[in-house]
Amino acid sequence: MVDDPTMIGIDEIGLGEQAFQRLGLTEGTEVEIAQARPPASLEFVRRKIDGEALGDGEIAAIIRDVASHRYSHMEIAAWLVACAGFMTTQETFALTRAMVDVGNRLHWQSPLVVDKHCIGGIPGNRTSMIVVPIVAAHGLVCPKTSSRAITSPSGTADTMEVLANVDLPEERLTAIVAEHNAVLAWGGRIGLSPADDVLIAVERPLRLDTMEQMVASIISKKVAAGSTHLVLDIPVGPTAKVRSQSDAVRLRKLFEYVSRHMGLTVKVVFTDGAQPVGRGVGPVMEARDVMAVLRNEPDAPEDLRDHAVMLAGHVLDFDPAIEGGKGYARALELLASGAALAAMERIIAAQGACEQQLVPGPLWYEVKAARAGRTTAIDCERIARVARQAGAPMDKAAGIDLLVKVGGIVRAGDVLYRIHASSQTGLDFARDLASEDPGYAIA
Amino acid sequence: MVDDPTMIGIDEIGLGEQAFQRLGLTEGTEVEIAQARPPASLEFVRRKIDGEALGDGEIAAIIRDVASHRYSHMEIAAWLVACAGFMTTQETFALTRAMVDVGNRLHWQSPLVVDKHCIGGIPGNRTSMIVVPIVAAHGLVCPKTSSRAITSPSGTADTMEVLANVDLPEERLTAIVAEHNAVLAWGGRIGLSPADDVLIAVERPLRLDTMEQMVASIISKKVAAGSTHLVLDIPVGPTAKVRSQSDAVRLRKLFEYVSRHMGLTVKVVFTDGAQPVGRGVGPVMEARDVMAVLRNEPDAPEDLRDHAVMLAGHVLDFDPAIEGGKGYARALELLASGAALAAMERIIAAQGACEQQLVPGPLWYEVKAARAGRTTAIDCERIARVARQAGAPMDKAAGIDLLVKVGGIVRAGDVLYRIHASSQTGLDFARDLASEDPGYAIA
Repeated sequence: MVDDPTMIGIDEIGLGEQAFQRLGLTEGTEVEIAQARPPASLEFVRRKIDGEALGDGEIAAIIRDVASHRYSHMEIAAWLVACAGFMTTQETFALTRAMVDVGNRLHWQSPLVVDKHCIGGIPGNRTSMIVVPIVAAHGLVCPKTSSRAITSPSGTADTMEVLANVDLPEERLTAIVAEHNAVLAWGGRIGLSPADDVLIAVERPLRLDTMEQMVASIISKKVAAGSTHLVLDIPVGPTAKVRSQSDAVRLRKLFEYVSRHMGLTVKVVFTDGAQPVGRGVGPVMEARDVMAVLRNEPDAPEDLRDHAVMLAGHVLDFDPAIEGGKGYARALELLASGAALAAMERIIAAQGACEQQLVPGPLWYEVKAARAGRTTAIDCERIARVARQAGAPMDKAAGIDLLVKVGGIVRAGDVLYRIHASSQTGLDFARDLASEDPGYAIA
Repeated sequence: MVDDPTMIGIDEIGLGEQAFQRLGLTEGTEVEIAQARPPASLEFVRRKIDGEALGDGEIAAIIRDVASHRYSHMEIAAWLVACAGFMTTQETFALTRAMVDVGNRLHWQSPLVVDKHCIGGIPGNRTSMIVVPIVAAHGLVCPKTSSRAITSPSGTADTMEVLANVDLPEERLTAIVAEHNAVLAWGGRIGLSPADDVLIAVERPLRLDTMEQMVASIISKKVAAGSTHLVLDIPVGPTAKVRSQSDAVRLRKLFEYVSRHMGLTVKVVFTDGAQPVGRGVGPVMEARDVMAVLRNEPDAPEDLRDHAVMLAGHVLDFDPAIEGGKGYARALELLASGAALAAMERIIAAQGACEQQLVPGPLWYEVKAARAGRTTAIDCERIARVARQAGAPMDKAAGIDLLVKVGGIVRAGDVLYRIHASSQTGLDFARDLASEDPGYAIA
């Protein structure tokens, strides 16, 4: 309520820019106003709070109202927390289907459309940017859409953006896939599963991260993107998103149940989530590592290469033309021959190459070992937080270069990692956090 | 974010009036801003979402942050829905104590401070305004603070306001109780259990109404008001808040557990919540009914009188000087003798009498029976909604006069109730709702 007539007249309504765009009217339009009625589907949210399992139609009604921005953040929080209490596999499937139904959907000519996804949580784990060119070089259709980082120091879209434009309209994306089999684009542009974007705006500040919402979010986006076959990477480790084998198996089964009912073939792979992957954390340094692997440079990070080739092998195993279990050898061959690098260069050129140099931020600080010993653990969460404090992912050159990985022997005073930043404030914040606890266990 | 320099300069911050008052600074004060850190207690909310029972200290930390307005509505919704999942009796007690600890607390000289409370949900159930004068006439200390209606057509504070000023500063409230034993004031002025007010702002739009929050809300306010003995009225009926005997017993036990641990003696009374009490619904018409009972008028609503005398009897039974079980007879005597009326008149005069006439709204509409028969049920929720649509409680003269109660025999076309309003819009809204379904079952 504004009572200043110089701002707005007594018979006028002013809206914020986002609300005004969403309304889709021109300034000066006459409107009638009425108190907003709460969306009818809130009744179903209340029943969920009361402990009921909801039917498919009820969940669909909720998701339609969520996608139409009829829910307040307060109401979305009520829905998400009620679901966190318990959610049946049938409800998770209904949620996934409802999220697909309210969004855009991509269609491809090929009967086999492959994809690869990681549930996240491991810094530096940029395997998609190696898997996709390998798969494209083999000739499978792989239209990879990724998100930007929300709580991590970099998402695949952020890292790919160091090398090429990732903000592609649907027609261009389709054309690039038609010509080069693959793309590495930002999914936010395409409007896949818009309800998920609304839910995420509440999940993230509350740090709600349930298996059911994760499965619905990932599978809805893959189905909407037109994928038929998916390799899903679940890192398991003490500081990863999934911390025990039993949780990993529960999550795998939920992914399998929902995927099967959505008509998506899924292969779940458990990977070692005990420490960050590769050396660089943050867009520029991750892109550098990815290109080093694709270029077969001798000092390219081995763990990133091995991890990526293994996943690419699983994707290639979806190809009926590949003899059972020979996907891994084929992936290794495509990487070693330079075919994957050539595919990546074609994809970069098609999306629009960036001129930017792959140079880490000019300001740096070295975090050193307090004592001599053997590195027994690296805390993924801590490394991610330090890299974010340094400025990643907004500052693409900010992040961390890891010089020691698990198993490494250090003397007191040896450099464990180097924090890079473009601003002194970012460097100071990151240094303070690393001084509190560098995230390394040395025994 | 505002980008219009005529509204606010580039180095200035503008706040809404409420936020500005809360900040407690004068205009033009230099301030430094920083991104708000999420309150540390949110970690405990997350653990509650994960299904843990929280410790006393954790709940206290949450309630301190809630009372200090450090939680967004989204975060409060997450807390409330997580609690709706399950809450132990120990947690409910800890919540109650935490809510008392963050607010103002009244202290009285008397070792016996009595109160009476109803959990609500039954239109016209204004027994407090009869119980309190009876108890005051007897000589017990009864500083009754009430809320205004939030979702009902009138709260005790709204109805009492028809007769007297209810917005009393703490010193005046204390002085009136010292002189007249009792008061009938609006509790919002005194700052009892401020966390509850913050939680209610989210509970109401979400229509969250769990037993645990209800118990913590009511008991925290009674303890903060300095009560030592409480009679608690739980109406049970098909359209009341409590709809089954088993729910009523569960709620009673929770009230008893928490009260005992808070050092409050409680007597829980189950009452008939099958239909509205009295004839009037809405501030003016309820005040008229209350005064008719106190004046012993022959046509005063019997159910309101019986209900109030029974509750007053239970309150008087707290007096050690009263022989066991003789409270009811004493209450009846104080009402019949006019002592209760005299006490009410002293309380009204002390708080400041209103000049306003007890006249229902000048516009009215009669809701008629569609068929002949016997009235078997009256829907409390529907009657409340119709009265609110007519304008109650903001329009004090708006509401409903019930001409037929359960058991009443009607012919087709007989008037069931009369809707009163001061505005045509209110009358139209209420008439439309009543036409849809008048809320009467006639068999």
